[in-house]
Amino acid sequence: MGKVVGFGDMLVRLSPPGYQRFLQAASFDVNYTGAEANVLVGLSNNGIDTEFVTRLPDNAISACAVSMLKRFSVGTSHIAYGGNRLGVFYCEKGASQRPSKIVYDRKNTAISEAKPTDFNWDNIFQGADWFHFTGITPALGEHLPQVVEEACQKAHAAGITISCDLNYRSALWSEEKAQSVMKNLMQYVDILIGNEEDACKVLGAVPGNTDVNSGKLDYSGYVSIAEQLINTYHFKKVAFSLRESISASDNNWSAMLFSDGKCFQSKKYSIHLIDRVGGGDSFAAGLIYGLMKAFDPQTVIEYATAAACLKQTMEMDFNLSTEDEIFRLMGGDSSGRIQR
Amino acid sequence: MGKVVGFGDMLVRLSPPGYQRFLQAASFDVNYTGAEANVLVGLSNNGIDTEFVTRLPDNAISACAVSMLKRFSVGTSHIAYGGNRLGVFYCEKGASQRPSKIVYDRKNTAISEAKPTDFNWDNIFQGADWFHFTGITPALGEHLPQVVEEACQKAHAAGITISCDLNYRSALWSEEKAQSVMKNLMQYVDILIGNEEDACKVLGAVPGNTDVNSGKLDYSGYVSIAEQLINTYHFKKVAFSLRESISASDNNWSAMLFSDGKCFQSKKYSIHLIDRVGGGDSFAAGLIYGLMKAFDPQTVIEYATAAACLKQTMEMDFNLSTEDEIFRLMGGDSSGRIQR
Amino acid sequence: MGKVVGFGDMLVRLSPPGYQRFLQAASFDVNYTGAEANVLVGLSNNGIDTEFVTRLPDNAISACAVSMLKRFSVGTSHIAYGGNRLGVFYCEKGASQRPSKIVYDRKNTAISEAKPTDFNWDNIFQGADWFHFTGITPALGEHLPQVVEEACQKAHAAGITISCDLNYRSALWSEEKAQSVMKNLMQYVDILIGNEEDACKVLGAVPGNTDVNSGKLDYSGYVSIAEQLINTYHFKKVAFSLRESISASDNNWSAMLFSDGKCFQSKKYSIHLIDRVGGGDSFAAGLIYGLMKAFDPQTVIEYATAAACLKQTMEMDFNLSTEDEIFRLMGGDSSGRIQR
Amino acid sequence: MGKVVGFGDMLVRLSPPGYQRFLQAASFDVNYTGAEANVLVGLSNNGIDTEFVTRLPDNAISACAVSMLKRFSVGTSHIAYGGNRLGVFYCEKGASQRPSKIVYDRKNTAISEAKPTDFNWDNIFQGADWFHFTGITPALGEHLPQVVEEACQKAHAAGITISCDLNYRSALWSEEKAQSVMKNLMQYVDILIGNEEDACKVLGAVPGNTDVNSGKLDYSGYVSIAEQLINTYHFKKVAFSLRESISASDNNWSAMLFSDGKCFQSKKYSIHLIDRVGGGDSFAAGLIYGLMKAFDPQTVIEYATAAACLKQTMEMDFNLSTEDEIFRLMGGDSSGRIQR
Amino acid sequence: MGKVVGFGDMLVRLSPPGYQRFLQAASFDVNYTGAEANVLVGLSNNGIDTEFVTRLPDNAISACAVSMLKRFSVGTSHIAYGGNRLGVFYCEKGASQRPSKIVYDRKNTAISEAKPTDFNWDNIFQGADWFHFTGITPALGEHLPQVVEEACQKAHAAGITISCDLNYRSALWSEEKAQSVMKNLMQYVDILIGNEEDACKVLGAVPGNTDVNSGKLDYSGYVSIAEQLINTYHFKKVAFSLRESISASDNNWSAMLFSDGKCFQSKKYSIHLIDRVGGGDSFAAGLIYGLMKAFDPQTVIEYATAAACLKQTMEMDFNLSTEDEIFRLMGGDSSGRIQR
Amino acid sequence: MGKVVGFGDMLVRLSPPGYQRFLQAASFDVNYTGAEANVLVGLSNNGIDTEFVTRLPDNAISACAVSMLKRFSVGTSHIAYGGNRLGVFYCEKGASQRPSKIVYDRKNTAISEAKPTDFNWDNIFQGADWFHFTGITPALGEHLPQVVEEACQKAHAAGITISCDLNYRSALWSEEKAQSVMKNLMQYVDILIGNEEDACKVLGAVPGNTDVNSGKLDYSGYVSIAEQLINTYHFKKVAFSLRESISASDNNWSAMLFSDGKCFQSKKYSIHLIDRVGGGDSFAAGLIYGLMKAFDPQTVIEYATAAACLKQTMEMDFNLSTEDEIFRLMGGDSSGRIQR
Repeated sequence: MGKVVGFGDMLVRLSPPGYQRFLQAASFDVNYTGAEANVLVGLSNNGIDTEFVTRLPDNAISACAVSMLKRFSVGTSHIAYGGNRLGVFYCEKGASQRPSKIVYDRKNTAISEAKPTDFNWDNIFQGADWFHFTGITPALGEHLPQVVEEACQKAHAAGITISCDLNYRSALWSEEKAQSVMKNLMQYVDILIGNEEDACKVLGAVPGNTDVNSGKLDYSGYVSIAEQLINTYHFKKVAFSLRESISASDNNWSAMLFSDGKCFQSKKYSIHLIDRVGGGDSFAAGLIYGLMKAFDPQTVIEYATAAACLKQTMEMDFNLSTEDEIFRLMGGDSSGRIQR
Repeated sequence: MGKVVGFGDMLVRLSPPGYQRFLQAASFDVNYTGAEANVLVGLSNNGIDTEFVTRLPDNAISACAVSMLKRFSVGTSHIAYGGNRLGVFYCEKGASQRPSKIVYDRKNTAISEAKPTDFNWDNIFQGADWFHFTGITPALGEHLPQVVEEACQKAHAAGITISCDLNYRSALWSEEKAQSVMKNLMQYVDILIGNEEDACKVLGAVPGNTDVNSGKLDYSGYVSIAEQLINTYHFKKVAFSLRESISASDNNWSAMLFSDGKCFQSKKYSIHLIDRVGGGDSFAAGLIYGLMKAFDPQTVIEYATAAACLKQTMEMDFNLSTEDEIFRLMGGDSSGRIQR
Repeated sequence: MGKVVGFGDMLVRLSPPGYQRFLQAASFDVNYTGAEANVLVGLSNNGIDTEFVTRLPDNAISACAVSMLKRFSVGTSHIAYGGNRLGVFYCEKGASQRPSKIVYDRKNTAISEAKPTDFNWDNIFQGADWFHFTGITPALGEHLPQVVEEACQKAHAAGITISCDLNYRSALWSEEKAQSVMKNLMQYVDILIGNEEDACKVLGAVPGNTDVNSGKLDYSGYVSIAEQLINTYHFKKVAFSLRESISASDNNWSAMLFSDGKCFQSKKYSIHLIDRVGGGDSFAAGLIYGLMKAFDPQTVIEYATAAACLKQTMEMDFNLSTEDEIFRLMGGDSSGRIQR
Repeated sequence: MGKVVGFGDMLVRLSPPGYQRFLQAASFDVNYTGAEANVLVGLSNNGIDTEFVTRLPDNAISACAVSMLKRFSVGTSHIAYGGNRLGVFYCEKGASQRPSKIVYDRKNTAISEAKPTDFNWDNIFQGADWFHFTGITPALGEHLPQVVEEACQKAHAAGITISCDLNYRSALWSEEKAQSVMKNLMQYVDILIGNEEDACKVLGAVPGNTDVNSGKLDYSGYVSIAEQLINTYHFKKVAFSLRESISASDNNWSAMLFSDGKCFQSKKYSIHLIDRVGGGDSFAAGLIYGLMKAFDPQTVIEYATAAACLKQTMEMDFNLSTEDEIFRLMGGDSSGRIQR
Repeated sequence: MGKVVGFGDMLVRLSPPGYQRFLQAASFDVNYTGAEANVLVGLSNNGIDTEFVTRLPDNAISACAVSMLKRFSVGTSHIAYGGNRLGVFYCEKGASQRPSKIVYDRKNTAISEAKPTDFNWDNIFQGADWFHFTGITPALGEHLPQVVEEACQKAHAAGITISCDLNYRSALWSEEKAQSVMKNLMQYVDILIGNEEDACKVLGAVPGNTDVNSGKLDYSGYVSIAEQLINTYHFKKVAFSLRESISASDNNWSAMLFSDGKCFQSKKYSIHLIDRVGGGDSFAAGLIYGLMKAFDPQTVIEYATAAACLKQTMEMDFNLSTEDEIFRLMGGDSSGRIQR
Repeated sequence: MGKVVGFGDMLVRLSPPGYQRFLQAASFDVNYTGAEANVLVGLSNNGIDTEFVTRLPDNAISACAVSMLKRFSVGTSHIAYGGNRLGVFYCEKGASQRPSKIVYDRKNTAISEAKPTDFNWDNIFQGADWFHFTGITPALGEHLPQVVEEACQKAHAAGITISCDLNYRSALWSEEKAQSVMKNLMQYVDILIGNEEDACKVLGAVPGNTDVNSGKLDYSGYVSIAEQLINTYHFKKVAFSLRESISASDNNWSAMLFSDGKCFQSKKYSIHLIDRVGGGDSFAAGLIYGLMKAFDPQTVIEYATAAACLKQTMEMDFNLSTEDEIFRLMGGDSSGRIQR
């Protein structure tokens, strides 16, 4: 099995314990996280070699972030050092009708000031089979679109599969700016990951407007969007996660994979949420894993969906599930009976 | 916008962490709380000026209680100092079929020994528009009915709106004693807050017994009680909260407002409870806020109900919701999606 | 009321706080527990005299285990001291689709090396009315089948009621080994406690295969198994707990008692789980209590079921419910309203 | 070895974690403690049978207090139930120049309202060899001097040794009131425990004013006071603890025993304090233990002093030292080397 | 008594619990702090009216910072809102030979981008008697020297006493830059607070080089520097704190006040440190308090020194001491005996 | 710089929080540790490549142990999997006169059952420069002396430097058994690490008995023992750590290195202990580092001593110091001043 390279941001996540609001917290639980890092941790926990590329300030807090990656066997040899700060986000967990709340403090970070010269992609991609980035990375700073494009060009030239999770963040850039950058990057992408909303905002897809009843509407709408994207950008696969937010405590979760002209739909899980942050990243990790392992398309999407379901039953952003645990859930054992 | 004065008790709340029972607790989470204080904190978090009046012993624990109020901008300049102790209550959080359990230790407190001379209501009501108390305050001690009546007389004379939440506590007094005191105080009250059970116990209302089917029965019963109360005591408004206790983990929550001869019924929320203590107080706060802001009656009751719903998704007794958060829930967004 | 003697293992339970996985835990909550000890704690909390018999190493950690029993008034005067270690198990709490996970480290413990000479059953059974053990105890070590049989013989000779909870643990022995030991011990047992699965594995019962629809199938299947067991082993009563594992967060829980040729079925509870470990032990405790108190069979099974329901709404392995609390739930109050 | 009966108060101790001040605490560590209870726990940890007599309200918090005693094998069968509340004290730990701070809330407790009829001393003293009380107990309420005197009379009549630790608390009574009660009770006391300051305040002893140099002054002063007390009250032994408060973090600790006309002085320990609360109680426990074991006088005072030293290196009020640990320290091993 | 206005930064302080290093921390204790805010909290806890002026982003984390000030009665009505972020610093507590470690992340904060138009000093200084700032504030951003100078000019014109604590931070600016700004600001300053090192770095003072022995050297050196400063800048008073860092666990602490041509030296305290951060700020607060209260110079410097000593025996940055507690220590009671 | 291989045990360390005794702990802080692992973590934190060899059961708790090593970049590729359990030790931290207490539960572990076939030393030593083990490893099980000898033979043949820390553990074997194994292994050892006591117990050295005064006695005694060892076993270097245990809170710490016929003595540090466990291991790590870096002998011993000093100012068993931090302390900065 080959190696997956991820490129993106890493932040300090500060969360009030349990269901406390920010105002009630005398301490914050701390995690070091980022969309692409989360994907790599998920892959590493399934036994895949991984390498995380970012830019960090050279200080004791970055050392904590790097140690968190090493703990999960994610490679950290190509991290560039420089700049002043690691980004921070404050994350208050919601419950029932009260939504979770995130306050971002991710400007002027080391990665936001990264330049092409910070990364030697030829070295980085030695022995790699897969390159993953999200729509957050090119949004982080002035030179990032160029840096990401260079990485994509090098990866593409080396025959490395490229996946992108759209991950639109309105706090980082406008839809217009996002489209101007992302549409161009799509030429390098083999595997697109996202959802309907982001496909429209970031790639300008048009929601389907068929006449069928509402239950069917969404489904055919998703298919329509996927077809538009595949026709325009010639992705090899498109995967959409489908989250139904019943409340901050309960979500339904399922997904679709578009592959070889067909649409494969997963089982739907009703999740009593422990922490939904990182759910999408674990979906991407499951998908990449399934594709690397050459599972059949239905198994790929079931694996990705089950992986993401399990993540959301755990604290913090990482999916700590093993392949065994994911297969057991896919196999239908969602009874939660004690494993002795 | 004017100022709301509240008068009542303040206690030390000691709660085992999480779902521990008293016997399992090596520590207690601590909060400083009281029905009227909770109302004022809720109002203050919505931007209203507030002033809390009570009597506290002059010691370091009272200083903690006062600091907790100041933290939320509740005024504390008219607190009387004297007496020996702050009341305490021990509160064990229930789950599923196991009910929450409260052990009160609130006798012989500073407030229970308060006398009319402890409070200069003319000063206290300077600049005030609203006076709020609950049925707990007159139950606390020998002189309290007199003190509350004096406050009501002064407030009434000054044209200040008076609201009362019935809040019957069987541990403090009998229904007979409660009726003998509370019926008299009702002459000063403009806005009555409560529920069917307390209206019957404290004010002697008679439950409705119409022939309509059970689904309609409750509704018409509530209307009947509200009408009795309005006819007897000439309240300007009567608001009832309607709690359906499915289990210690899940409750339904809705409310009704009787105003100008009409009954306005709110949406119903199915709440996965984080802490239900203080839910009624946040309902009162939402109601007072809506009335002060001169929302239309339907908006008033929806605001109060949504505010109280949100409180019950938070730890401890205070409603930390902003007006924005309450309006977002009223507007239909109960999906709990992350606010970034 | 008489005294209940229990004989079995005691282990250190190490649990990551809240919903953390093992890999995330910087600390473990600690409890000292064991199937029979849990039964005795449940009985003691209902006012029954109890005595726990085991073998422990003579060290400071055993002192913690003994202190935990004393805290709940369980007698500890007949514990044998010797050997090297107390068993340990690591228990990670699941949520939603993620199952709880237990890693056992219970080999080579003091109890596993126990010999007949460690226990003077004549002394131990002085003043006792009841002897309880589970299928775990004879599985713990080479001499344990003999030790348990001796205890049963002495108890039987002294007219002491003997109850056994089958509790099959595949980590300790195979079904063949279990059957070879347990079938022999059944001659002494008056009250059998278990479930369908364990009855088949440990006693070789054959699942019923009637043609009735699936809803009825289970029921008649349970009856068939109970009848087989009663016919073969002449138990006075057989009680089965029926757990439906919806997820790691939600279970349904009910039970059946076979007594005097009839089957008594309990109410079914939908439990939002706090900690399901120890649920079966609290069922056994409730059953023994009901039988000692000579409740009628329907009350016995309702009491045992309600007790076990309440346990599962509490943290850790012990049932801290009082008789009052159990009766209140049996009486239909599962609303979880605050007890003031 | 016989049994020691203690009679006194039990309180909820609420302490901010670590070195937090009250104002900083979001939780309080909880312990259930009292001067006489502390003495009995210390004795029980040394293997002595003990029985604690008090009066408690019949509620779930008292159950915690009783469970805390049972955990350490202290007998609780003769506790009287009634009244409204358990006392509370808030205890903030000092450091360096900042003193510890205690806020008492111990009025109107169940024990303060105790009456002679609450206790059947004939039953209580069955099988007892020793009765211990402190100067706190008669100070707690109106009838307590009478209750204590009755207990002393019964104990004296039964040939039970009586020890009293003077423990003057200015928050409970004046020196005049204390003297009026305590001087009378001294007729029953065999073993007096205290310090110079309390002997003067409670028993009216006059500090010695010899001409010797300051180093010797204290010593001869203590001897003088002990002689006054022995001459007046005919105690069999008098023991004084000598605390030198260097700061809230460091204390010196030593003691003296007056026995058979001689003065036995202990080693002095320089203690880096973990929690000094309960130090005096563990001194009393060590003294009683040494006298019960009939150690020679020098060993008695060394044992008591070492026991109290060890207590002050532990959290909370109880001395959890074993006899072995105390003897190891007495024997000169204060190196703190790891015991493996 | 008048009102003290402070102007400066506010940061999120994130500290690993206890003595953990950053790498070991799974959570951070959180405090909201800043040099000038710490001074105001200290003053407020002594009963002085205070107002804190800063610029904060308009988000939920700023609300926590403001609430922390309100909790201690510090006025927050003149805070300007705007910009993107609140500064953060990570603070690892040292012990013995291991120093504490601070990682700053305070660039690009809301205050660093403050402009003169953000503050209406005429309004802010209404009713004020004192203005306090430190050398940190003008170092925070491009426009800050101008903003501070404007504030000083307005304060000076209004007859308000101005104090400045030099507080040189090499992470914020060079000594050259500091001197170019700070020397100019000194024309407005009445009361200078600092130490020898900062006086040399920030104001270019020359260390004294007398021939006297080393014990006297420091003392006369401090006098020499104070005289240079007074001669150059015509300060009314100069106060130096003198810290001797024995280890991260133990410091000696004393101070000097230069007033009316004389030097007043304080007692020296040997402190077993709980948290030394904020010690200098509490010294400034004690000094301002003493001068506002018109204590005599020796009392002023003793008060300031004792206040700062007590701060360092507490967790976090604030001095929670009352005037009583400070006077008790000044009066010689450093025994740490329990205050009941 | 080369790579250091360590071979030994890994255990779960369970510690009551703070200064709690076992009996008081509701949770245990958890660490995964072992003498050789601690050495490798210390080296890795100084930038050295490391590889830890052991045998672990294949379960989720071992995964935690491995993750803890990975977190600090220690290689884990050659760990053998098999067996039933990871060892456990319970560690209660002492204070002042109260010693720390360790309860071991390390029998029947996976490593104790290791066989020669579990390890391929040719592979393991690829690219290695150094092999380190302690006297604990051969004591762990029946085949371990043979396994260690094989490793030593392979290392020796490959020209790899071998260091051994004597680390005598009486709980694992007798002095006789230790001598019979260890004396033989010494033929392979280049660098011996230990103290006087272990040299006598494990290698049969005879304490020196010169006539010089006691202050000098120890020193010359250490020299004498070192000379005996060097003469007998032809070690290249011998290093002794010298701990003076003043109390469980305060220790003095220094060391000696015997090299090239000379004795190099380090500075002595007075340490206020945070956690002394792992102090010796960090000394070994510092020594190995200094020798690998070819520091001069005085610098080597100063580096090792300072490293071990710093370790003891940190929680848990690992030395998290960087080379910079160790050099700063060696350079004389033990003032503990904040590093900003």
